[in-house]
Amino acid sequence: MPGKPLVVIALGGNAFLPKGAVAFPHEQWRRVRIAAKTIVDVYSSGYNVAVTHGNGPQVGIILEWMEGLRHRIPPQTLDIANAMTQGWLGYMLQQAIGNAMEERGLGRRVATIVTQVVVSSGDPAFKHPTKFVGPYYSREEAEKLSKNRGWVFAEDPRGGWRRVVPSPRPHRVVELDVIRDLLEKGYITICVGGGGIPVTEADHGLEGVEAVIDKDLASAVLAIGLGADRFVILTDVEGVYIDYGKPGQRLLREMRVGEARRLLEEGQFPPGSMGPKVEAAIMFVEKTERLAIIGRLEDGVDVVRGVKGTIIKP
Amino acid sequence: MPGKPLVVIALGGNAFLPKGAVAFPHEQWRRVRIAAKTIVDVYSSGYNVAVTHGNGPQVGIILEWMEGLRHRIPPQTLDIANAMTQGWLGYMLQQAIGNAMEERGLGRRVATIVTQVVVSSGDPAFKHPTKFVGPYYSREEAEKLSKNRGWVFAEDPRGGWRRVVPSPRPHRVVELDVIRDLLEKGYITICVGGGGIPVTEADHGLEGVEAVIDKDLASAVLAIGLGADRFVILTDVEGVYIDYGKPGQRLLREMRVGEARRLLEEGQFPPGSMGPKVEAAIMFVEKTERLAIIGRLEDGVDVVRGVKGTIIKP
Repeated sequence: MPGKPLVVIALGGNAFLPKGAVAFPHEQWRRVRIAAKTIVDVYSSGYNVAVTHGNGPQVGIILEWMEGLRHRIPPQTLDIANAMTQGWLGYMLQQAIGNAMEERGLGRRVATIVTQVVVSSGDPAFKHPTKFVGPYYSREEAEKLSKNRGWVFAEDPRGGWRRVVPSPRPHRVVELDVIRDLLEKGYITICVGGGGIPVTEADHGLEGVEAVIDKDLASAVLAIGLGADRFVILTDVEGVYIDYGKPGQRLLREMRVGEARRLLEEGQFPPGSMGPKVEAAIMFVEKTERLAIIGRLEDGVDVVRGVKGTIIKP
Repeated sequence: MPGKPLVVIALGGNAFLPKGAVAFPHEQWRRVRIAAKTIVDVYSSGYNVAVTHGNGPQVGIILEWMEGLRHRIPPQTLDIANAMTQGWLGYMLQQAIGNAMEERGLGRRVATIVTQVVVSSGDPAFKHPTKFVGPYYSREEAEKLSKNRGWVFAEDPRGGWRRVVPSPRPHRVVELDVIRDLLEKGYITICVGGGGIPVTEADHGLEGVEAVIDKDLASAVLAIGLGADRFVILTDVEGVYIDYGKPGQRLLREMRVGEARRLLEEGQFPPGSMGPKVEAAIMFVEKTERLAIIGRLEDGVDVVRGVKGTIIKP
């Protein structure tokens, strides 16, 4: 309803699959129901809620499918693959959230909006692709594909060679007005799945590009655009740690945004994991002077309230 | 905007691919742009517009992918495959429609809603699956899959054996309220893709099922639910023919709903092609006493106005 504070919740990949798990449908449903309960807990504690989510394992599966059968079926592009995961994961989330709402007599007020996010065609990321996507190849296969398809490859530290694609910075959420209208009507609104479908502004209008947008940064752009009261990133660790994984690692309960920026620049938070989350939180707090919180999915409502997780404040 | 008449437009598969064409992304974009122009023509001639669409070739591709790589990646279920096509095709339509709107200075007011459609778990279709989906197999492969996966197979008149799945009747569109809210705000609303994601009402809430809903019937259920002023089915023929494909075939410019029902029962309209379209039109006209029109995609606005195509009237 109008008048309620608005929280944007970015769900990590663990909302759909535990780390390293195989993507059986029943396993995804089991996880999604846990995430849905958390989301509805937050909603019924008095917030309007926009939900974003990652899509790593699922977009990986679609890329494997496309490549595995490319001799029989023309592969679709990466923007289309992202759109497919928005349908896939949006459906699962919206069904599970709707069921949890009905169980509590709240009515089924939830919707998934297919979302495009504008990036700049001049973004330096297009010259330096860094984001690993799709199957692992041998060096020889990678060289062949690089020649035939024009793809860029890099050696993945996890072993083998993989395609790398640009990860340009998100500028704006194309469907922002629709999302705002649905939130104002009290719908839990699932959007910006997998960081959004990357598009650039071309002469004839928007156009999809072969890239992947970081979902935490895209979620921050959404939260800023909506004027959200709070931006919450839910993941599989309790919060932000100093010296993570080293002896003497220390959970930060809260930090000022300036301190967060200093620690980020010191390299305390690894890229591709806590790094973009802290960066997204900083972006939101600097623009809005409101709170961002990073915490564990299972601690849902307590994280949104700021009782658990790490608070980044102005 | 409120006050404008509402038309529900059901797009046939030819909105994304010409018959028999290979699903290259550029070929789909080319077709989608034509469909988008038609939709925006209708919108700017003074209607609110809900758009539904088929997904036959695309869901076929996803099933081929899933089966082709099933030894490496767990296949997802048919409800999830449908959800993927809603993301895929919804994205393409919404980008192309948005571009066409901006080109005409209308602003980008378009959204795709991931849509579930309720069917009855007691529907007789679940005992008699009839809808062909996915790859073609030899008799031996089909027998093996039937034993291992519990699938039902039938011989496709186009050659080979294929899985058949139930095609239960659509009862209601789960996301009807969201769709209505967006239409009232003047958004062109893309929804009920591929006939909607089939779900049944289980004890713990909605649950996806392995089935395919006819997209024309689901679109009629949408149009009735929304109280649409007009229900339009756009396809690749000029309208409804008597003695189609025979010498002396005759295009019907209009017919009363009783006559349409009589011709349908006589078997004038083949199942799987014009049959469900006429049946969907009849369903809408009988419930609402308003007009349904069946015509060619390229004749868009003229069909909506009733100047071209076949009008089915009360």
